[in-house]
Parts: sequence; C-alpha cells; structure tokens
Amino acid sequence: MRYSRAFIPTVKEAPKDATMPSHVLLLRGGYIRMVGAGIYELLPLGLRVMNKIASIVRQEMDGAGAQELLMPTLLPKEYFEESGRWEGFGSTLLRLKDRKGGDYHLGPTHEEIITDLVRREIRSYKQMPLNLYQVQMKFRDEPRPRAGLLRCREFLMKDAYSFDADEAGATKSYEIMRDAYHRIFSRLGLEYRVVSADSGAMGGSTSAEFQVLAQNGEDAIVACTSCDYAANVEVAETVVPDAASDHESDLLPMEKVHTPKAKTIDEVVSFLGGGLRPEGMIKSLIYGAGDAVVMACVRGDHDVNEVRLARLLGVEEVFLASDADIVKATRAKPGFAGPVGFSGRVIVDPDVTHVLNAVAGANETDHHLKNVTFGRDFEGEVAQIRQVSEGDECPKCSSPLKLYRGIEGGHIFILGTHYSEKMNATFLDEQGTSLPVVMGCYGIGVSRLVATAVEQNHDDDGIRWPMAIAPYQVMLTPIGKGGGEPFEVAETLHDELAALGVEVLLDDRNERPGVKFKDADLLGIPLRVTLGARGLKEGQLELKARDAADNEMIPLEGAAATIAARVKEALA
Amino acid sequence: MRYSRAFIPTVKEAPKDATMPSHVLLLRGGYIRMVGAGIYELLPLGLRVMNKIASIVRQEMDGAGAQELLMPTLLPKEYFEESGRWEGFGSTLLRLKDRKGGDYHLGPTHEEIITDLVRREIRSYKQMPLNLYQVQMKFRDEPRPRAGLLRCREFLMKDAYSFDADEAGATKSYEIMRDAYHRIFSRLGLEYRVVSADSGAMGGSTSAEFQVLAQNGEDAIVACTSCDYAANVEVAETVVPDAASDHESDLLPMEKVHTPKAKTIDEVVSFLGGGLRPEGMIKSLIYGAGDAVVMACVRGDHDVNEVRLARLLGVEEVFLASDADIVKATRAKPGFAGPVGFSGRVIVDPDVTHVLNAVAGANETDHHLKNVTFGRDFEGEVAQIRQVSEGDECPKCSSPLKLYRGIEGGHIFILGTHYSEKMNATFLDEQGTSLPVVMGCYGIGVSRLVATAVEQNHDDDGIRWPMAIAPYQVMLTPIGKGGGEPFEVAETLHDELAALGVEVLLDDRNERPGVKFKDADLLGIPLRVTLGARGLKEGQLELKARDAADNEMIPLEGAAATIAARVKEALA
Repeated sequence: MRYSRAFIPTVKEAPKDATMPSHVLLLRGGYIRMVGAGIYELLPLGLRVMNKIASIVRQEMDGAGAQELLMPTLLPKEYFEESGRWEGFGSTLLRLKDRKGGDYHLGPTHEEIITDLVRREIRSYKQMPLNLYQVQMKFRDEPRPRAGLLRCREFLMKDAYSFDADEAGATKSYEIMRDAYHRIFSRLGLEYRVVSADSGAMGGSTSAEFQVLAQNGEDAIVACTSCDYAANVEVAETVVPDAASDHESDLLPMEKVHTPKAKTIDEVVSFLGGGLRPEGMIKSLIYGAGDAVVMACVRGDHDVNEVRLARLLGVEEVFLASDADIVKATRAKPGFAGPVGFSGRVIVDPDVTHVLNAVAGANETDHHLKNVTFGRDFEGEVAQIRQVSEGDECPKCSSPLKLYRGIEGGHIFILGTHYSEKMNATFLDEQGTSLPVVMGCYGIGVSRLVATAVEQNHDDDGIRWPMAIAPYQVMLTPIGKGGGEPFEVAETLHDELAALGVEVLLDDRNERPGVKFKDADLLGIPLRVTLGARGLKEGQLELKARDAADNEMIPLEGAAATIAARVKEALA
Repeated sequence: MRYSRAFIPTVKEAPKDATMPSHVLLLRGGYIRMVGAGIYELLPLGLRVMNKIASIVRQEMDGAGAQELLMPTLLPKEYFEESGRWEGFGSTLLRLKDRKGGDYHLGPTHEEIITDLVRREIRSYKQMPLNLYQVQMKFRDEPRPRAGLLRCREFLMKDAYSFDADEAGATKSYEIMRDAYHRIFSRLGLEYRVVSADSGAMGGSTSAEFQVLAQNGEDAIVACTSCDYAANVEVAETVVPDAASDHESDLLPMEKVHTPKAKTIDEVVSFLGGGLRPEGMIKSLIYGAGDAVVMACVRGDHDVNEVRLARLLGVEEVFLASDADIVKATRAKPGFAGPVGFSGRVIVDPDVTHVLNAVAGANETDHHLKNVTFGRDFEGEVAQIRQVSEGDECPKCSSPLKLYRGIEGGHIFILGTHYSEKMNATFLDEQGTSLPVVMGCYGIGVSRLVATAVEQNHDDDGIRWPMAIAPYQVMLTPIGKGGGEPFEVAETLHDELAALGVEVLLDDRNERPGVKFKDADLLGIPLRVTLGARGLKEGQLELKARDAADNEMIPLEGAAATIAARVKEALA
C-alpha cells in the first residue's frame, strides 16, 4: 500500500477527553474516529488490526471444532423475556419498537437466541458435543462508555456456545475452549494471565478470565511468579497461616495508650514508634451488611477483600459504615475502633490470630490498646477476609505472588442448565430420557483487544504492535525528494516483499524525514526500513524494529528475503 | 468437514409461508433459520456462502483501489437530521432512545456518516480521488419483509462511497466501480444484466443496476439479444417508428359498430373477427394525474409505461381512473373509451400514428369505431408512452430485445454534491477555492445475493451452487455401512483434497444411499463423488456434477488431482 493513497489521517493532538494511551494513540494514528459517545468508526488501519485479531480467533475456534454461524442483532423481545433478561438487563439493553409497535432490542449477547436454535434443532445426545460461535457487533448501553475501544456501546465480540449431554461433556468442551484461548492469546502476541473470576450474573459455576496485562487496566489481579496460578484480587485465596502455636509466655499485659488524633495505621505507627510496624497492628473496619453492622479485623498491612466478606455474610455487597454508624457502634470517633470489648459481630482474618501483643483501637476516642492478642483479649469468627498482597505465598506452589493490572480480553464459563431449563432446550439421552442440554459460553472482546494491545504495547512516541496483529508488517521510508533513487528502490522492494506475502506500507509521501519518522513511530509498524541516498550508494538499507533502541544496516542485495525472514521470525 | 459433526439441520418440508424457491431451499438445506419477521440466522453453511460472496466483493473493491473501513450501526440522530433523512426515511428507519433519552437510529445506509468523516478529514483536492467502503449489517424496517433473505429487515450490504474534486473525477470513479462490479458478478458465477435504472430517491444523476436474472425476480427488465443494451422496463426507450408516410389513398371511411359487452382488446378482436389483430386497435386508457384526467393511447398490443407517462405529465405517479371517473370523462361505461371526439387531453404513442383504419372505442357504451386514423379522425400530443415489448428493436443495435425478470444485486450511483452541499463537505482546489466534494455511492446486497444465486440456480431437488460461492466445492458420499472400505477411502480422499486446497464435505453418516443423495442434491454442492464397494473393486469412483444429468467413472488412482482440476476449471 502506498501511504499517499491510503486513508491514514494522523493528527498531532488527540481531543482532551482522551486520556488512556490506547484512546489517544488510536485517534492520533488515524485508526479510529468517534461518531458518538462509545460509538466509533474503525478507519482502514484500525479495521485491519481488528480483522487480524478476528482471523486468529476464527482459525483457533475452527481448529477446536467450533462452527461459525451468524445470529441477528435485531431481536424480538420474546427470547429475552423467556430468560428474564428483558427486564434483567435494565437500561443496558437498547430497546426499540418496529413500525407495527412490536418490541425489539439489540443483542448484547446471544445465550437465549442460540438456546432457541438448539432447542429447535437438537433432539438426541448423538448431535452433541456441539460448539457454535459468531463474530458480531454487540450493543450495550454502558452507563459510562469511555476510553475509546475499551468500553464501547457498539463493539465486536466473538461469542461461542457449547452444548453437551452432561456435566462431564461440558467440562471437556470448556477445557477445549480454554486451550484454544491460550493459543489465541499467545498468537496475538499479548502477555496475559488466566484468572479464576467471580462468575457474576451469568449463573455459571466454573469460569475464568483471560486478562491482558496493562498498567492502566481496570482489573487488579495476582499471579504467581513461577507457576500458572493467577486470580482476580477479589477472589484470590490467601494462604492460611499454620495454627498459632503456644506463645503464652511471650504475652505482655494489655495497656491503654493515649494516641491523640492518630487514626490511621500509619499515624499510629509513627506516633507510637518503638519499632512498631503495620503488621503489628490490627486494622478494624466497621461494615454495613444488609441491616447488620459487623467489624472486620485484618492485619495492619492488609486490606479487607469486600467481595469475600460479602459472600461470607451472605449479602450482595458490603459497604463501609458511615461516621455516625461507627460512633454508634464503637462509642468513639472513627479511627479508634478495635475488637476488644466490641459488642457486635466480629470477623477476624486468620493472619490476625498470629499477631501477639498487637496494637488495636480502644473504642475510645484518641486511644489505642497495646499488647492485644486474639484468644486472650478478644474472640471472633475466624475467616479469610483479607485481600491478597504482593509477595504473598502462591496457594499452589508457595512462590511469591505478584500484583498486576489487567484488562479482560476473554471470559469462559460453564453455564450448566441455567438457560436450557428456562427455555426448555432438551434432548433424549441413550435411554430415551429427556434432559436439559448442558451449556458453556465463551467470549472474546475483539474490538476491545485492539485497544488492549495498544495499552500493553506503546511508548511515548506511539504504538508498538505485536507482529501478528500489526496493520502492516513493514514500513518502507524512502528519504529525499519524491521520485529519486530511494523512492525507486523502495517501489521495487515493496513489490518484492508483497510477492513474498509481506504486508508493506510504503511512505511515498513528499515529506521531510522527521515527519515520516514521527508518523512511523506513531503508527507502530513493527519493522521500518529506511532508504537513504548515502546508504544506497554503499548498497545498504537501515532496518529498525519499532521496539528496539538501535537500528542496523542490511545489504540491499537480498533485502526482501532478509526482511521477510524477520517477519516470519516475529510471528513464530 | 465431516457431515456427522457439521451443523446442517436439513428438513423435508419448509414452513408453508415460504414460497420462493430460495426461501424454501435455504430453509430446507439448513442454510438459514428465521428468528423474527425479516430476521434470519445464517447457519454455518449459509454463512460460508455469504462469506465467499463478501470475499469476492472485497477482493475486487481492494483491487479497484477502494479502502475498507467500518462505520457504526448505532447512529446518533444528528447526522440524518442534517440531510433531512431522519424524517425522510419515514417508518423504514428503526429509531431508538438510549438510557439518557438521546435519539438514535440503526444505519439503513451511510451517506451521512461517511460525508461527516470526509468533511472532517479531507481538506485538499490532493487527498482525492478517495473510495471508502464497508461490509456491514444494515437495518430497514421494511413494510413487507418476505422471501427469506431476499427482503430482510437486517441484511448484509457492501456500501462504497467515492469522493472526487469534480464531475469528471466522479465519472471516472463511477466507471472504475462499474468495471469492478462486472468482475464481481462474473466471478460470482451469476447471469446478470446491467440496466439503466430510475435513480429514485437517492438524488443521483447517473446510475445503473446490476440485475441478476431469475424467473421469480421482482423487476422486469429488457435486454438486447446481441449487444450490451439493457434497461429496466419502466425506463426502457422504445424505438420511434419513422414518420408515417402518406397513405391517404388507403384510408376507409370511419364507421360506428355495435360491440355489445366487448370491452377488452381480445374481446373486440374476437367479436369483430375478419382478420383484426390487436396491433390494428387503439388501446385508450383514462388516467388520473394529480387533479387532471388524461387519455393515454397505445397500440392494442402494447402497454402503457406509467413511469414515463407520469414523468411526461410532471407528476409523481399516475393511476388508472375509477369507473365513475371513466363514465364522467367518456359518457360511456368502461371499455369503450377512444380518442375520437374525446374532449380532454390525449397523449398518443407514436406507434398509434402508424395504424391506419384502426378500431377504437366510440365513447358510447357497447360501441366501437372502425377505420379510425390519427390526423384525420383525431389529434393528440404524440409522445413515447408505451412499454417496451419482447421482440422490439434494440435502440442501440436494432437486434430484437428480450424480456427478463431480475433481482437487483447491485446499484451504482453518481450522487454529485447532494450530500456534500447539505453537510458542508468541502475541499480547496488547486486555486484555493472551496468547493463541495463530488460523491458517488455503490451498493451490493451481499446477503440478498445468497438467495438470488439460489433463485437463479436450482431445480426441483435442491440448490445448484456456482462453484465460486458453494459452501463446499466437493461432496464425498461413501456408500454402505460406516467404517467399511468406501468410508476409509473417502477419509483418505478427503485429506488429499483438503491438502490441494479443495473444500470438501464428507458425508460420513451411517445413512442409506437414498438419504445421502437426497441431502446432497438439496445442499447443492457442485461436485459429488460417490464411493461404492463395487466401483472401488475396479478402482473407480463415480463423479457427478450437480448441474449435469449424467455421472462418469474416474480412476481412484489420481482421483484427488482429477477432482481438484475440475474445481479449478469451474472457477476459471
């Protein structure tokens, strides 16, 4: 492709409301344009990237035995009504009426539609396992669309659905998809972790997220530095310390100390001094959980995992108590709560039971207690309620854990019979018994991955595409006046590379080298070849990888083969 | 692909409301399923066909220098409001509100959206010519969705838009697209004609339709049997006969005859007898045109072209007058109108002026006039208002014309500055003058072509796909109990063919030959290879083309190469 004829409207500055790097760089590089809030145009370069991602997804889905079909976007109300999601989706569902007043909505996901197809067409266990997928625009009226392609109202998704005769079959289908997802994310060239996820509203029992690592990711995850363990911070297990051994001889007598205005862990540590560290303290937080008020105690250096706490208490969510409620519960100003003498329900993280002679709030304004020890000075229900921390032991292999930020790129679920029972999708088993189909569902946010790849792969100058999903693999940059020798050589090289199957963007514009280099860095094509008059005289070209600091000179003779080999290498 | 694992739910009977062959056969063959009125699922086979069509379209668009992008489906009101089409599209536009109450609609076509993109990004004549296209689901709330994929409310369309600095450039862009469309329709393997079309509501000045010939097509077209002339019947020119020569000596005196109850041309011909033929009569029809009533006279064997008549009269449309209005205008019952003595406006087709001693209505119930001749017995405005007939002379080469039915598969337009002026999409020309961009637009109904191809290519047993768009190119049908020698040989042949790049469907089901052959004919795979134990003993396979009456035996040795060569041949 010749740059001069390509529609690549690069710009120097992105609009002010674009803050995430992917949003800024995709706008600046002429990959996308906004049409409305959370609604984007994919310009030629952006579409090329998205198509490459979709193509890898399709190859691996087909290879895993899934079959592609295409369901509609415009859906009559009746299907979602059967599952309860016509109401359940709330205002995220985009609803509309047709000319006859019939109720319709745009497809946000297609469990009901595929279940309807399957209940019409599947009669026997012999027709399963079956895995059907599509690659299609989905529509969700997000409350806060933002960050360009990261959270859109119209986005491209690959959604697959598996159908099996029993749980064992469903588990096998799930595992086949998990393996296919590993191949997909590896081939995309993205660093990712597979994490156990909270299955949320989908009603599934087994699920995992494919999290693409990125500094600005909205999800906090933890992963082992040596084995494959990884989990969403919200559901990550913490290693329970061994039962506290008998340390009675080390225990000191409890005493109350005056700690004026020292409310936070750090303030108390610095006020009391004398070698006190956060891990020697008990952090006591008052939560509202439904109508009840409970105290959650974790070690001073730990945080409460509110998802686990809520699950333990059997409520949808917990929330930190208001100042007024804290005063009511502890008879002290906020910042001085502690488990000793607290009259309400107390949940104690196991790590707290190991701290001897701890410092805790005294339930008295401006006072703390020293030498507090679980069992002697206070009791409570012991349960893992702390959030995992960097350096914690891996629950699988005991190596240290590391915290990451991630962006969800894929999600796999075993749905079980949630939809098939509601919608009466049954089959006859070998004995002629009618049973509900056992389902799984498997999503990949294809358009979101375009932005996600940029979040993971960029620098101050622009994008650094992984070779597998770059809009072009090689950029040729002839230097000098248009039509001169560098341009002629570049044209020849362009055609030679194209003949070798390499995707080339030839910057044939009559621009200064600085402009060309700036655009090249912004676009992020993985390999750049610079053709200058001086180098050509010596039979040399300059080759630079976008993610390398230095460039190298390669001989013009055989340059096409050399470059094609580099491309192949990067794809392997 | 193994049939036993493929999702191909064939059925014996289509639902009763399916009447068009493509609708019936695509349902029966497991290509599509209905989700709602005018809303379909494309099952794996159907999607394969659609993707093949889309792929040919994309290759030729790219080859013609167009660049693919992807605009959104969910569109804020503002763009269509600028062009006036928010109202103009009427109830065909699917409108909806988002969670904040903002007005949106689904994209029925994208002139406004692309014009908005271009007005933001195009500044100079140097950035043109530019041709941008997309392949995308479109949404139109058709008043009468019908015939499966032929008229859907959600359908896949390729829409391209060209941008030029002047009319000459736009014409060139239009011609490049016309040539690309010829390559597309040829490669699809469809018989088609390019017809000049009424440009309708799009506001264009030059346009053409690519009509795929099909018995049940909704459009009537006429095409030359020797040159490339073709036109929609509604706009087809008729050859004006030479000026009537002087035949005064042949004229007989006019006389009134009693023709009780003989109202139609045929009734009068048969009542009067004596060698009278329809071409010796004058057909006089009373039309309402706005507030006026006019008489249109054509030869007895001709029909009035109402589109031409309306255009001549300067009205949107004409309609046949009611019986009451006819009585009022002619003072006779319907069936006896004629130009002689008619007091209103009379339009006379030139062919009528050549009929000497014609029979015409007498404007008196149960009476006609004999020996009526234009010029002597009546006058009127002479204008071409008849519809073209089979056998008429081609206006380009004088060969006989033939009538066809067709289905519109593609449409190309020069839009001019219709949208660019309304939406202020301007550029600076070489002199620095700001001018509106000159546009063209070019559509292909991709999903519609799936059904159109079936309309043109089927028989009583099923579909007969052209090789280029068949879901699979070859079907292997081993006969006998599963696992026997024919199945083993078929498996080997399947893999050999796949290695040669041939798309194979292997019917590995344990079904009787009759079932397999019936399904094979229904699915319409172009080449079927039957593997039977007897033939294999003699080292022979049976090869049958779906559109051939007979089969032939080919040697098993080298069969893959033989079959692959046949596929290649059919694609050439």
